[in-house]
Amino acid sequence: VLDHRRAVAERNLEAILAAAERLLERRAPATISAVAAEAGLSRVTVYAHFPTRELLLEAVAERALRMTAAAADEARVLEGPADEALDRLAIFSLHGLERHAALVEATGEQLSADARRRLHEDGLAGVRRLLERGREEGSIRRDLPVEWLLACFYVLVHGAADEVRAGRLAQAAVPEVLRTSFRDLFLCR
Amino acid sequence: VLDHRRAVAERNLEAILAAAERLLERRAPATISAVAAEAGLSRVTVYAHFPTRELLLEAVAERALRMTAAAADEARVLEGPADEALDRLAIFSLHGLERHAALVEATGEQLSADARRRLHEDGLAGVRRLLERGREEGSIRRDLPVEWLLACFYVLVHGAADEVRAGRLAQAAVPEVLRTSFRDLFLCR
Repeated sequence: VLDHRRAVAERNLEAILAAAERLLERRAPATISAVAAEAGLSRVTVYAHFPTRELLLEAVAERALRMTAAAADEARVLEGPADEALDRLAIFSLHGLERHAALVEATGEQLSADARRRLHEDGLAGVRRLLERGREEGSIRRDLPVEWLLACFYVLVHGAADEVRAGRLAQAAVPEVLRTSFRDLFLCR
Repeated sequence: VLDHRRAVAERNLEAILAAAERLLERRAPATISAVAAEAGLSRVTVYAHFPTRELLLEAVAERALRMTAAAADEARVLEGPADEALDRLAIFSLHGLERHAALVEATGEQLSADARRRLHEDGLAGVRRLLERGREEGSIRRDLPVEWLLACFYVLVHGAADEVRAGRLAQAAVPEVLRTSFRDLFLCR
């Protein structure tokens, strides 16, 4: 019975998260009521998983980040020389942000800066390892703390996505702009 | 009568904003009720100015930013060669973030990333003029869009303050870390 209950809970959870992301993609408010209707579940069931809309939004974002990280592993984005991997990772991250544009918009509007940063804790661990490997290989600079380089990676990639969303930076210009910025900020001279 | 009413409204507004910042500095929640009590005003009066706690927090942050901008004008931070002014401005901005640490913490926890960025619209106009002057003087790079350099200035200064707050970067390391990052990201080679 417990196994069955767990299976139902997991299926409901996935249905809730997928329904919330579909609503966001249609630019519809992902309220608990709307998500319940979209997922074909009762509001009580959705509330049992997510007492607030913010917690639901964070879970949707975590799911998207996990999927993006899995795709990066699959595509071996982080392998090979660290400086080249960093370039690939920046572009890969931007594509992730584009693919989940509606979700990124919702988190930018509804989650605090701190909450958004916390969502990236796991993903940034891989970037930290990449930066540390690059230091050993001699391509990544050692005169700035690695935690600072990590922070720069996070704020610059998100900053670029936010600027595109605000209409201040052309989407087409982003890869070159980020590549140049990363080269000058991360690589040894 | 109208003049008298306007004077009362302005005095109340200032009392509300000052009370909210005092509460934040004591790490007390700046709820509408708490602010009313601290300012010696009725809740109805506070609600009349700020229907929600978020709008109140945004107004407190705007006031702090205006005060910081006025202090920067007073200290002629933006004058002289643009590259030197940019250095001074980074340190000046960090001091502003430190001086209003409790407020910065509250905005990081309670305002969305988009709302926080909007608060800085006015202040960033001065930074844009500085960057443009630096391009004319030949010190600031021209191979990246000025709007992108402006975004980098914003996200890196706030990123540094957020990292210090999260305990990932030592306060004492920040000036040198920012100066090095700005040099490599903003200046001509």
